[in-house]
Amino acid sequence: MCRASLEREARRKDKVERALVTSVARCVIPDTGSMETVARCVNPTVSFLDLQRHLLILPKLHLSTRTEDTLPNNNTIDLDPRAFASTVDIMCGTCNGDTAGAAPPAANSTTDNAAPSASTSNGVYPAQGKPASSPYQLVQDYISNVGRFKIIESTLREGEQFANAFFDLETKIKIAKALDNFGVDYIELTSPVASQGSYDDCKAICQLGLKAKILTHVRCNMEDARKAVECGVNGVDLVIGTSSFLREYSHGKSMDMIKSTALEVIAYIKSKGIEVRFSSEDSFRSNLVDILHLYQACDKAGVDRVGVADTVGGATPRMVYDLIRTLRGCLILTLETHFHDDTGCAVANAHSALEAGATHVDTSVLGIGERNGITPLGALMARMVVTAPDYVKSKYNLKALKSLETLVADAVQVNIPFNNPVTGFCAFTHKAGIHAKAILANPSTYEIIDPHDFGMTRYVSINSRITGWNAVKARIEQLGLGSEFSDDQIKEVTAKIKQMADIRPLAIDDTDSIIRSYHLDLQV
Amino acid sequence: MCRASLEREARRKDKVERALVTSVARCVIPDTGSMETVARCVNPTVSFLDLQRHLLILPKLHLSTRTEDTLPNNNTIDLDPRAFASTVDIMCGTCNGDTAGAAPPAANSTTDNAAPSASTSNGVYPAQGKPASSPYQLVQDYISNVGRFKIIESTLREGEQFANAFFDLETKIKIAKALDNFGVDYIELTSPVASQGSYDDCKAICQLGLKAKILTHVRCNMEDARKAVECGVNGVDLVIGTSSFLREYSHGKSMDMIKSTALEVIAYIKSKGIEVRFSSEDSFRSNLVDILHLYQACDKAGVDRVGVADTVGGATPRMVYDLIRTLRGCLILTLETHFHDDTGCAVANAHSALEAGATHVDTSVLGIGERNGITPLGALMARMVVTAPDYVKSKYNLKALKSLETLVADAVQVNIPFNNPVTGFCAFTHKAGIHAKAILANPSTYEIIDPHDFGMTRYVSINSRITGWNAVKARIEQLGLGSEFSDDQIKEVTAKIKQMADIRPLAIDDTDSIIRSYHLDLQV
Repeated sequence: MCRASLEREARRKDKVERALVTSVARCVIPDTGSMETVARCVNPTVSFLDLQRHLLILPKLHLSTRTEDTLPNNNTIDLDPRAFASTVDIMCGTCNGDTAGAAPPAANSTTDNAAPSASTSNGVYPAQGKPASSPYQLVQDYISNVGRFKIIESTLREGEQFANAFFDLETKIKIAKALDNFGVDYIELTSPVASQGSYDDCKAICQLGLKAKILTHVRCNMEDARKAVECGVNGVDLVIGTSSFLREYSHGKSMDMIKSTALEVIAYIKSKGIEVRFSSEDSFRSNLVDILHLYQACDKAGVDRVGVADTVGGATPRMVYDLIRTLRGCLILTLETHFHDDTGCAVANAHSALEAGATHVDTSVLGIGERNGITPLGALMARMVVTAPDYVKSKYNLKALKSLETLVADAVQVNIPFNNPVTGFCAFTHKAGIHAKAILANPSTYEIIDPHDFGMTRYVSINSRITGWNAVKARIEQLGLGSEFSDDQIKEVTAKIKQMADIRPLAIDDTDSIIRSYHLDLQV
Repeated sequence: MCRASLEREARRKDKVERALVTSVARCVIPDTGSMETVARCVNPTVSFLDLQRHLLILPKLHLSTRTEDTLPNNNTIDLDPRAFASTVDIMCGTCNGDTAGAAPPAANSTTDNAAPSASTSNGVYPAQGKPASSPYQLVQDYISNVGRFKIIESTLREGEQFANAFFDLETKIKIAKALDNFGVDYIELTSPVASQGSYDDCKAICQLGLKAKILTHVRCNMEDARKAVECGVNGVDLVIGTSSFLREYSHGKSMDMIKSTALEVIAYIKSKGIEVRFSSEDSFRSNLVDILHLYQACDKAGVDRVGVADTVGGATPRMVYDLIRTLRGCLILTLETHFHDDTGCAVANAHSALEAGATHVDTSVLGIGERNGITPLGALMARMVVTAPDYVKSKYNLKALKSLETLVADAVQVNIPFNNPVTGFCAFTHKAGIHAKAILANPSTYEIIDPHDFGMTRYVSINSRITGWNAVKARIEQLGLGSEFSDDQIKEVTAKIKQMADIRPLAIDDTDSIIRSYHLDLQV
């Protein structure tokens, strides 16, 4: 190799290295990892490095397909030049070859809904505008929407699929108004095709004049779409199964049939001037190339959102991050996500999706839905108020959460789970001695969420054998006896409480009696 | 630059590129991302590239500190040469410059507990030995322990910190035996220092002769450690708060004091020939360099496991992955993890920790613990039976889950949450028409977990306005009337059911009555 070409190659490698280093350094999960997976899925011989080269150099990337049958019409996936602009921007926005300590700008250039970015003083996340001081803190990267997500509240659709749910119109209106008061962006209703009652109720709710936009959720066909439009909704959510499972055992349609129907239905709904979303069902078990093609076709047809659904509840946060990031890389920028909770990951998956650039999250109150349900509104609020406190506290009426949950729990005849985040009866109860001591000195020691943000209060239990003398001291002070006990005496009365708590469960009255009896003995 | 040095530099860059590409390509979250964060945390001028060079070339890396006060005795973190060997192995194990399609070997060379690796036929994960065919499938990387984790069951320790918990000895023994029968690896008990009853019960449970190892969980001081050893436990779990919050408001100790006490206590427990774990409390809000130093010192002192605890429940899966990966990079290979559920991420965080190489997960039955508790045993089983079905089904007695949960729920006087994974009353209930149709044809369409693995059964509800005629047809067949209805007639009777379900909630008896009444009309 001649010297000039060696130098050229060294310069090229420098550039690629810098991009790689930047992408890896910035995001922990590399910004471009998902792009690579698209490339490798379509053509296993495309290396990550090749892709990086293209990202940096070429405006448009043609990826040949692995087998002809996976790409319907031609051998390329068209990745819009804008995708590369934004990706390169993501990688190199603040990079001058120096990877250390650059704080990302607050605004996200690839989405247009401005909103406060995440900031907090809860000790986990860096304050606004400051770089993270610790590597396992939240990475405020460019694609993340944790500080500007929207909620599509589906208690009146997914929730109606919950085993116990029967909502009459009066109940539906109560729930819709309570959701609107809470501040959700969208309220999704059962398909008007399901029954005459569903049709009538949908119409009635559209006429309530709520701030939240009203959606209904229908199968992707013209008949359902017409019924939906008739009801006067602000938007129609189309859904069709795309996994091989559902294509074989549910509707029996090919991907080509799905696509042509989808385009027809989308065009019809758009012609009526209302919002339309297209979602695959069981997205995480669908062929990636199939759904990319489908989404891209829908995107070109002017769909307002595409939806990704973990219909069976099997996805993990890393799977979610990767798929959402891939879709963003293909310039699907307005992304709704829907997570079932069969494996207990629905809240974390929603968070992971927002980190990867999803814009909308489906929720229901207490998570009610098919089987054990979906991402619960309350648990998502608990998660997001920690990740993006400014946004969540300013946008949602958190103090209304408890009454909203109680309303829905009563309507479907369930108890609020004892271990529910925020509103479970013990969510802010502290019991172990070492916990109680610190909580009394500074609640942030053992509380990542301030109960007052949700109109809740904390409780320090001293009625057990694992209590400690600091907690007992606080109770003694509450009883107005603080000045009459020395620390040694408090330790002695604590020992008496523990002794009794070894024998039987104690109520606060019992503990108070032990304290008062000891106090009487002191005075004798 | 001379030609020889240009060539040398090109070769070096080739090597670095290949390592980077491999690490990025293999794991989506790069294997080495966390190493970088360590380096940058300690010294922001250390670039990722520099670190990579060291990883590839140097047996030992000295990182200078940012401020002198963060590194107690000298200016280096000693990263054991084995760390690099294993890291390089992780990055380059199967890499020959080709990043595409190489299947990782089944066994993990850096851990010694051999076990079946994850494989499945549930449509989400690749079958054993085959490379992933889709980029958002589970990444079976070298460091993952999803197919060989151990459970430290803490219902009798963390669970006793639950607001409602009062366990007498009889109840403790019942629970311990049930946990042992379920197949957990360890059972953790409340500190014997908490009360005389706790001490006596601990001794009694150690004498039951269970297969599971018995641990107790004490503060990191000599007095507590001696009491623990006296009880005859198989292991002692030491804990101390390391966050600035807890150091200031709880115990008031400096990191130096913590370290010297820890080393003394560890040496004492090791001298008694029993297992010892050292865990920080509130690890995700502790200074990374502080806890790395502390862990490394404990590791050198021969500790059996180190523990990472999200004591306040604020961590996200990505934060967890990064911290665990960092610890693995520093050769902390036996890693216990403990996640609170305040923000609904405890199950996903445990999964993420195992993906990053953690070896042990703390659980409690139904998640009972301080506040709203920790990773629930049942929900973790739901998650892991999907991720690593062979391992989970062969190791744990899944069919005993329901009775175990019922035992504990009764003991602490709570209901099993309606939305509990697997054992919630509706976890396998299918209601919407399109779901029911597909479930009847093939349960995998809408079930990621086979209910029979847990001794549960599915139920297809037809008593609502969102039911469909395929579900009604199945019920008609169950009633033995299948041959007497045409499809059109089934659709007609379905319309009648929907009509009635619009008016009031229906029970299965009501629906059956509608079917039978229609059937009578047919015969007239």
